[in-house]
Amino acid sequence: MNAEIISVGTELLLGNIVNTDARDLAVALSELGINVYWQTVVGDNPERLSAALEIARERADLIVTTGGLGPTCDDLTKQTIADFFGAELYFDRRAETELREFFAGREMTDNNLRQCWLPVGCTPFYNTCGTAPGCGFRAGDGTVVMMLPGPPKELKAMLDHGGQDFLRSLSGSQIWSHNIMTFGMGESAIEDKLRERMNALKNPTLAPYAKEGEVRLRVTARASGREAAEMLMAPVIGEVRAVLGDIIYGIDVPSLEAVVLRELRARNQTFAAAESCTGGLIAKRFTDLPGASAVFRGGVTVYTNEAKMKLLGLDPALLETHGAVSRPVAEALARSVRETLGADYGIGVTGLAGPDGDGLHPVGTVFVGLASAQSVEVWALSLGERSDRARIRALAANHAFDLLRRKLTGLPLL
Amino acid sequence: MNAEIISVGTELLLGNIVNTDARDLAVALSELGINVYWQTVVGDNPERLSAALEIARERADLIVTTGGLGPTCDDLTKQTIADFFGAELYFDRRAETELREFFAGREMTDNNLRQCWLPVGCTPFYNTCGTAPGCGFRAGDGTVVMMLPGPPKELKAMLDHGGQDFLRSLSGSQIWSHNIMTFGMGESAIEDKLRERMNALKNPTLAPYAKEGEVRLRVTARASGREAAEMLMAPVIGEVRAVLGDIIYGIDVPSLEAVVLRELRARNQTFAAAESCTGGLIAKRFTDLPGASAVFRGGVTVYTNEAKMKLLGLDPALLETHGAVSRPVAEALARSVRETLGADYGIGVTGLAGPDGDGLHPVGTVFVGLASAQSVEVWALSLGERSDRARIRALAANHAFDLLRRKLTGLPLL
Repeated sequence: MNAEIISVGTELLLGNIVNTDARDLAVALSELGINVYWQTVVGDNPERLSAALEIARERADLIVTTGGLGPTCDDLTKQTIADFFGAELYFDRRAETELREFFAGREMTDNNLRQCWLPVGCTPFYNTCGTAPGCGFRAGDGTVVMMLPGPPKELKAMLDHGGQDFLRSLSGSQIWSHNIMTFGMGESAIEDKLRERMNALKNPTLAPYAKEGEVRLRVTARASGREAAEMLMAPVIGEVRAVLGDIIYGIDVPSLEAVVLRELRARNQTFAAAESCTGGLIAKRFTDLPGASAVFRGGVTVYTNEAKMKLLGLDPALLETHGAVSRPVAEALARSVRETLGADYGIGVTGLAGPDGDGLHPVGTVFVGLASAQSVEVWALSLGERSDRARIRALAANHAFDLLRRKLTGLPLL
Repeated sequence: MNAEIISVGTELLLGNIVNTDARDLAVALSELGINVYWQTVVGDNPERLSAALEIARERADLIVTTGGLGPTCDDLTKQTIADFFGAELYFDRRAETELREFFAGREMTDNNLRQCWLPVGCTPFYNTCGTAPGCGFRAGDGTVVMMLPGPPKELKAMLDHGGQDFLRSLSGSQIWSHNIMTFGMGESAIEDKLRERMNALKNPTLAPYAKEGEVRLRVTARASGREAAEMLMAPVIGEVRAVLGDIIYGIDVPSLEAVVLRELRARNQTFAAAESCTGGLIAKRFTDLPGASAVFRGGVTVYTNEAKMKLLGLDPALLETHGAVSRPVAEALARSVRETLGADYGIGVTGLAGPDGDGLHPVGTVFVGLASAQSVEVWALSLGERSDRARIRALAANHAFDLLRRKLTGLPLL
């Protein structure tokens, strides 16, 4: 089965927003074994949307649209699709009930009721965090059509609440996936280790996806049901674990910092961060996670030597002798922030994110210190003279989180 | 003139990356007065790219492609387009020279030379930060085609170095734009004030674009040359200034923090930040800017009361009496971080980004303190109970930067 994604919205054509919906949908579809060969963006325009549908139905079995399901006069996806495929609409009472509940206590303008009209015979997907339901139906010509909301949060929630189940029901067999998340080995090296196996595997399949120093390995199985799929995937996951070991930081987890949060919470422990070159990124990424405050004692962004001395009491002689970008300073930062903020673990990061160097070290030189009650360890990283500032900062933060993960879970510290 | 953007890359279809190229191109095209009615994404597949070109040439005057210009065997955009339009390729010597310079001192594999073949008669765009040149040419059937690189940094640089000039040359008249950046007034309110004028203006035009609490007003003029365009735009910009006043934070500037950086540098002054609910975001956004270290004395992420006391010496009685989310605490944070880090200005932010409240204040309650040598002022913000955590944090950071901008430039502090 192959799909075309049609994103509806003039704001996309104008470049007001980036099309994260297409990305999120593409990931969801490919995890369900549905190929996407085409993505199209059109504006809030019935003629052009109809033209796009005409093209799409010739080249795809499944059309998934995002956007244009809301209450305003610009929201025309549903009517356009209904007209195009000759589908009748009915008024969905449950959608109306949930809509009125959503507006409880506030005024609901009548145009909102437009959202409750759905194609006869469709599978409705009720919106768990917005006003517009989506739906899936098979048109007269056999094309399967799914309409999903534009706001990213609503789209993702609707995939979880009805969308994915509908997609699974389309093919005779069911497709399930797991994502093996790794950090610390490059994509080429991982492919070297696993290439033969990846080429040999037909069901499940194993495929790598690289992004910012991380490699995600997706295992996808086709089976008659979930349990059967899990039974197919488990041995493959086991094989990958045997080959890659602890560079795997989790299965189906969103990020390194999410794993750190989970592990700290499980142990009732805390950490604090002293950041020089990462400039607040570690604190920001960690505190992005709900519940982080329970395990984060705080941090300092200590760009200047004065800040390092004032906030953390670093010894001026240390800075004089070794310079800000050095092992001893990374160690001192980690130890001081741990003690000052009363955390179980302290992270200290000092380095050169660029574009300026310091005359001594190449851009990309980063030292990460990790202090615990028993010890302090420091790692020297070379994050690439050709990398840009944002990438060096992101990689340094990833390394810091990975080192803390390893410490917490008793893994070898690289 | 209307354009279709075709983004080439299997990684886009799989959802490995988000299509920021389409967004950046769409903004650039619309600033030059070129309408975009269609965007398409195809994989690294010659048949499907050819099919997309077939459809695009029927419905657009200009086709702009991104991606697929590199040295590997997956990079097939140029050959596919040449074959499709019957264009011959020639070997561009300057591209070769610049390529060899790019690799100076390192090994250059021969496949890189593929990138130097360009369509006969094209306008080449040499790549200022990568290996693949792009180009623009008029095909036999009159369709104008532009090929640009996929990596976002290279795409943006190439637009600035040849791309935009080529686009301007396509129409008889030239299109120029300026972006009036505002913060502090909602889109509806701005539209109320300017709607009549926006409807009346034909050349230049004035249009609003809203994003995360900011409203960007784009002025676009069509004229015979740059100077004539500037003469048309200047009075309109003047009118908008007269109506909106100091909620305008700059013309053609990228962000509030970029303006803060410029103003601090001009005055040789510094700031420091104490962040509770923004969790390092202010420090991170500011230190994202090259050159920030000259004016940023550092910051603290003081999530817990202990951190506020330990790092900044906040009075426990203050926290007891008023609670962490309060004016007095925002004031104390701003003052303390300023003094501790020896900065000219101190920012202190405390509030509730959600999803948890504190039983006293609604989610979205944020207090921002701004301390200078002479005074400390505190603002109370209500950033919306329905907003999510990320949005509240982003808005709080925007407000902090805006208040510092106003202080630095002698504007009324709202």
